Amino acid sequence: MTVPENVPKNTMRAVVYDERLRLAADRGRPVPPPGWALIRVHTAGICQTDIELMKGYMDFSGILGHEFVGTVTAAGDSRWQGRRVVGDINAACGNCETCRSGLGRHCPHRSVMGIAGLDGCMADYCTLPQSNLNGVPKAVSDDRAVFCEPLAAACEILEQVAFTGSERVVVMGDGRLGILCAWVLTTVAGEVTLVGHHDEKLTAAAWNGLKTRNGSADIPGGADVVVEATGAAGGLQEAMALCRPRGTLVMKSTVAATSNLNLAPLVINELTVVGSRCGRLSDGLHMMEIHPDMPLERLISARLPAEDALEAFELAQSPGALKVLIDFSSQ
Amino acid sequence: MTVPENVPKNTMRAVVYDERLRLAADRGRPVPPPGWALIRVHTAGICQTDIELMKGYMDFSGILGHEFVGTVTAAGDSRWQGRRVVGDINAACGNCETCRSGLGRHCPHRSVMGIAGLDGCMADYCTLPQSNLNGVPKAVSDDRAVFCEPLAAACEILEQVAFTGSERVVVMGDGRLGILCAWVLTTVAGEVTLVGHHDEKLTAAAWNGLKTRNGSADIPGGADVVVEATGAAGGLQEAMALCRPRGTLVMKSTVAATSNLNLAPLVINELTVVGSRCGRLSDGLHMMEIHPDMPLERLISARLPAEDALEAFELAQSPGALKVLIDFSSQ
Repeated sequence: MTVPENVPKNTMRAVVYDERLRLAADRGRPVPPPGWALIRVHTAGICQTDIELMKGYMDFSGILGHEFVGTVTAAGDSRWQGRRVVGDINAACGNCETCRSGLGRHCPHRSVMGIAGLDGCMADYCTLPQSNLNGVPKAVSDDRAVFCEPLAAACEILEQVAFTGSERVVVMGDGRLGILCAWVLTTVAGEVTLVGHHDEKLTAAAWNGLKTRNGSADIPGGADVVVEATGAAGGLQEAMALCRPRGTLVMKSTVAATSNLNLAPLVINELTVVGSRCGRLSDGLHMMEIHPDMPLERLISARLPAEDALEAFELAQSPGALKVLIDFSSQ
Repeated sequence: MTVPENVPKNTMRAVVYDERLRLAADRGRPVPPPGWALIRVHTAGICQTDIELMKGYMDFSGILGHEFVGTVTAAGDSRWQGRRVVGDINAACGNCETCRSGLGRHCPHRSVMGIAGLDGCMADYCTLPQSNLNGVPKAVSDDRAVFCEPLAAACEILEQVAFTGSERVVVMGDGRLGILCAWVLTTVAGEVTLVGHHDEKLTAAAWNGLKTRNGSADIPGGADVVVEATGAAGGLQEAMALCRPRGTLVMKSTVAATSNLNLAPLVINELTVVGSRCGRLSDGLHMMEIHPDMPLERLISARLPAEDALEAFELAQSPGALKVLIDFSSQ
């Protein structure tokens, strides 16, 4: 993967959000600081969070994107040079109390690729600390590797909630993240039901014994674990109603909106609500390697060249769409 | 404690809420079903939940009250006869899957004294299953024993959240329950700060190294555990801001109201929110026994005879009030 001859050396294409979404043709190419790598992006994925950012979430302004696979074109550590990589999106300071306790993903001084204080990967080039990089094994295709970040976010649930294998789980939301959460949970829980409102998405989600329901779930006695991945601010209220007393509710939706909530069921039924964000990319890669039959490619609804990035964003927001990819590999 | 001669045998005084709060002079005395005990109430305490019930919480109608100490006057099991008792307020079915799993407090068929489907203890007599009774040791006075139910609710946090002794804890809310939670947590955590808005309540809360703050807390890096006991629907939003990433937030407020919440901080900081309700009365009694210096009596703002129950409720809702007791021991 080399840069086409006709791309000016110091500029690049980039999908920029600054009060409006636009494709910039001559954005300045990033100059990686010491310890950071320059990455030539092959493919980037559109996430619900990107769409939330355009609604005001995080007050973000800059190059969007935090799901990618690419090739390192410059790095202080020559071992990274030319390697195909995915990357952890949180750039931690490495020195504070939070970082020293192993929670760099929560470093108060962190920047987050394409989300907070750091340009994203929807561009010909992006940059990340070398320590954030994960080499992609040859057996993992670009089309699978680009799912590494959202799959890691699904795997984050396994770091936060203990499963014994007997749990009845409901995942609310048949979007891209909901399906990935459901797939990951089928590998550890007793019975997983994905609840959504789109027959075609629920059909695409069939894997590893996953049950699907269009409409609402009916788990007598309530589910042991409910994962809220609807992307809607009001999802928590419905999730509380699906959960058994003393059950666990995992919140995956990051939304800009507020919702009017009655929290009495949370207290009365002594539910535990676990906020869950992004995970370790190494966990996502590992999940792909031990489950090579996980049908990630099936979630690709469309793949558009960089020039059509705005159309890609429109597609990603259409009701039937799952993952929409933006291809930066050719000019 | 015997019934005064001049009380008609089949009626009693009772504090009733049925769309309005009133003192009934001739309420029918309860007839305990098999396995239940009849209890002559000495003293009942007013809880914030009673006040929420009058705002529509739980659609309750009937005799209020779930905090009491009394003497058993009739029970199938003669060992209870004449004993001074406190009682667990959840009357479980004992037969369902939830009960068999040891979570009778969450039995879907349960009634709850003075809260749901069962008359409360603000009356000359109340009734509870014998299996709910806890004998009060002689060393524990009535004035302490009447705190057993709210103290058990504070102890419930210890059943749900593991403490290693190094935690920095913030308790939000200097009401009766907030202070009890703070006191219980000083016995297990590293540093506990009670945050409220009433100097006189914060002064009354001084015990066992508890720190107090009028206004807001300032814990650099955030608290490990935040207990939300403000009694306000919007307390969760402020609590989220006080909690460190991956920290734990205990929700104690049961309110009828809804609040407009932005849950993004919960997901971004991967907080765990634990709904926490009533605890085992035996845990409350045990806490009193091992901490005989816990200044429970200091929380008694007023003690009024049954005849002045309506005034007692007014007092309990005044900003400076802590626990207001209603005395049923004399006619």
